[in-house]
Amino acid sequence: MSIADQFRVVPNFKLNEADANRKVLGASTGVRADDKQSDKLKTAELAENISKLQDVFAANHAPKLLVILQGMDTAGKDGTVKSVFGQLHPLAARTVAFKAPSVAERDHDFLWRIHKEVPGKGEIVIFNRSHYEDVLISKVHGWIDQAECERRFAQIRDFERMLIETGTIVLKFFLHISKDEQKQRLEERLADQDKHWKFDMQDLAERVHWEAYQQAYENALLATDTPLAPWYVIPADSKTQRNLAIATLVFEKLESLKLKFPPGNLEYGKLVVE
Amino acid sequence: MSIADQFRVVPNFKLNEADANRKVLGASTGVRADDKQSDKLKTAELAENISKLQDVFAANHAPKLLVILQGMDTAGKDGTVKSVFGQLHPLAARTVAFKAPSVAERDHDFLWRIHKEVPGKGEIVIFNRSHYEDVLISKVHGWIDQAECERRFAQIRDFERMLIETGTIVLKFFLHISKDEQKQRLEERLADQDKHWKFDMQDLAERVHWEAYQQAYENALLATDTPLAPWYVIPADSKTQRNLAIATLVFEKLESLKLKFPPGNLEYGKLVVE
Repeated sequence: MSIADQFRVVPNFKLNEADANRKVLGASTGVRADDKQSDKLKTAELAENISKLQDVFAANHAPKLLVILQGMDTAGKDGTVKSVFGQLHPLAARTVAFKAPSVAERDHDFLWRIHKEVPGKGEIVIFNRSHYEDVLISKVHGWIDQAECERRFAQIRDFERMLIETGTIVLKFFLHISKDEQKQRLEERLADQDKHWKFDMQDLAERVHWEAYQQAYENALLATDTPLAPWYVIPADSKTQRNLAIATLVFEKLESLKLKFPPGNLEYGKLVVE
Repeated sequence: MSIADQFRVVPNFKLNEADANRKVLGASTGVRADDKQSDKLKTAELAENISKLQDVFAANHAPKLLVILQGMDTAGKDGTVKSVFGQLHPLAARTVAFKAPSVAERDHDFLWRIHKEVPGKGEIVIFNRSHYEDVLISKVHGWIDQAECERRFAQIRDFERMLIETGTIVLKFFLHISKDEQKQRLEERLADQDKHWKFDMQDLAERVHWEAYQQAYENALLATDTPLAPWYVIPADSKTQRNLAIATLVFEKLESLKLKFPPGNLEYGKLVVE
């Protein structure tokens, strides 16, 4: 089974049956210290190769890549950006973190601020949170009802289909952690003063809604997984396994494009630079 | 027959059967000088009333109004903006003219630059040209084939439906002039040095494709007229009749919302300003 198939959302997918601690096929267990080390080395190598493929990707100036990272607080979205995409050339790559919307953003449709940030030709853009928040936090807190949520699912499917039809590759990762793992990570943040900046009282308030979030995520994943805009549910209790899984999927997707540097001007080879 | 029904695109609509010189129901003929004067007075009054309704519209801070103006060169898009929307308060109204796309715009999907400019709550935005150029000039010049054109029609329908579902009223006007009228207007621009700035050599080049444009417009109107995003084909050989028709339609739409100023805080009436 390919790594892509291993993590794809399937019909009748149940989030509470997905093991947040499941191992990446063929990878180390990620439990022993030397296993983690092995995961890290493999991920670093993949990140380097992703960066090399980016050169060709940018030079072709045709396809666009949009990577969407979603997950509960502490699921590791920031860490994934650093480990998997940290080697990308900033000229043709951007990470966009979507926080609570501004007044101007709330005055527009929820896709307004999202559409502005999608990649152009040859660009790789990583969304740290995204338009999916508008069917997650909004649904959990009852700011929208089920009918509005379904309308948004359809709007998201249409929007992503349009992006794909206009040359964008869309990869969506749900970083799946267990409730116990989140507890541990929040406690770590509270215990270490140097990690306090990452802590937000809101994280504890949201944790109370854990089950509602899991249900909202399951609904969203099922409603918006399409053949061309697939969702991957990445077991994320192990940080090194999570990074390795995502790095592998991104690398395999880029490699599958079989891009080459565009043919040069044959005359160029004959030019003399005085 | 209401003025809205009079100009709505109907199934099996044929553009070459639409009279560019047809009169607005119940309006003057627009032919005699004093008729033109009467049209202008009525339009000015409507523009003033539209401006008054805008106050309530902006105060409600809920609905959004998007007006799309399309038409061949010299059809009168600029003149319509001035006559019908010239009285709007600039704080809550904008006109956006879409010219040839920039490099960054061409690197993105054709709706990217459009979505950025849609109205927020309480705002009135007028598009002078729009995303429809991407199924008109692009189709006429063969930059896209029929299959891509159909894909864009669907993307436009989805996009406009999303705007409507998120609180936007969408009014689309095709300013319909005859080929003879365009000839006359171009000649006027060439004869008057003060109008040379409005003339573009490209206008003559595009005029050669008149029939292809008419066909592309007919296809676009039929493919993207929906109950909530209707197209109105406005006879535009007479400038005063054109303005009167559009002013009437916009005024009637705003009035039909039956908006009132939001209820004030009852305590405010008791406050004393020292």
